[in-house]
Amino acid sequence: MSSETATQHARVPQEERTRVMRARLLEATIQCLVDAGFAGTSTTLVSKIAGVSRGAQLHHFPTKNDLVVAAVRHLAEQRRAEIVVGRDDFPVGEGRTRAVLEAMADYVTSPFFTAALELWVAARSDEQLLAAVAPLEVEFGRELHRIAVDLLEVDESRPGVRELVQATLDLLRGLGLANTLGDDSRRRARILDQWAQSLDRELKELG
Amino acid sequence: MSSETATQHARVPQEERTRVMRARLLEATIQCLVDAGFAGTSTTLVSKIAGVSRGAQLHHFPTKNDLVVAAVRHLAEQRRAEIVVGRDDFPVGEGRTRAVLEAMADYVTSPFFTAALELWVAARSDEQLLAAVAPLEVEFGRELHRIAVDLLEVDESRPGVRELVQATLDLLRGLGLANTLGDDSRRRARILDQWAQSLDRELKELG
Repeated sequence: MSSETATQHARVPQEERTRVMRARLLEATIQCLVDAGFAGTSTTLVSKIAGVSRGAQLHHFPTKNDLVVAAVRHLAEQRRAEIVVGRDDFPVGEGRTRAVLEAMADYVTSPFFTAALELWVAARSDEQLLAAVAPLEVEFGRELHRIAVDLLEVDESRPGVRELVQATLDLLRGLGLANTLGDDSRRRARILDQWAQSLDRELKELG
Repeated sequence: MSSETATQHARVPQEERTRVMRARLLEATIQCLVDAGFAGTSTTLVSKIAGVSRGAQLHHFPTKNDLVVAAVRHLAEQRRAEIVVGRDDFPVGEGRTRAVLEAMADYVTSPFFTAALELWVAARSDEQLLAAVAPLEVEFGRELHRIAVDLLEVDESRPGVRELVQATLDLLRGLGLANTLGDDSRRRARILDQWAQSLDRELKELG
């Protein structure tokens, strides 16, 4: 074994350990944001929940803001991957729109949305946090829009289609918000049943 | 002047002074929630902004939760009154739906919505606050729904109409949320233009 290969062998487990530790910190941060809110989240509490030393935590994420922004980004990427992976499972033709709305509703009623909501609201009155959160929010918004257009298989060059997709995403955000104070799933299902029908009819109308 | 009349005369200004002081405290609370968020709001800061003695403040609102819940209720009542007062100003026929959506969008992009959002999010991880906020949220939701049905002049006994009105209110909540991180008015105007057209067509379809 050459010395170069030996170094590579030694490096891989170290990189893997770092990856696992970072993931543990980020997952503990989401748990903290969901359970205790932004105000109740602290780097000390997160390293305790994650079972990661304070030194290691500070090395990877020097401030609370670094930690919470990285955590929300991490979870968003996971969730997005889940939706995209399921792409081929959506029915073709009838029922597709309703199934896509369901997948996107899962997204806005998940811990991701709750944690992101805590961040958005805290960022409103915290300039430094806002500087990190505002671009992230724009990026998420664009990405979610792109996913919606792709899954719904609509043509945005037709006037009004873009606005209907945006309205659908804002409706979903509103449903996400309504769900944070208690289980809103029955009301949400009825609204999405109706909106799937209306959206299909409206898209045809604009076609 | 009988002694009874004299007492009444003395009492009226006292009642008026109390009313004005309460209103000042509640308006200072909204200002505090909007500027500093729920975590940054304290009864001490509110009495300072309102220019009301700490003793008087504690007499009327013993805890921070009493103060913030009363403040959001106070502002909601004012705003609701504004929408309802404008009832006869909405055009009849064409353009009515768009005008109603505009009035309701004003509601969800006002300091009322921002302050309420701070309360909702804080209540998620604060059981005592949740006990006060959850019924308030249900009450607001019902009232806003009733106002929307009334202004849009729709018949909820037709299947699907109730869900379309709910979807409209959830869309507005989503638009309110999107507006908290920055001015979203141009995007919102385009979405509401499209939604007004689609809603009118869908309501006719369900008719």
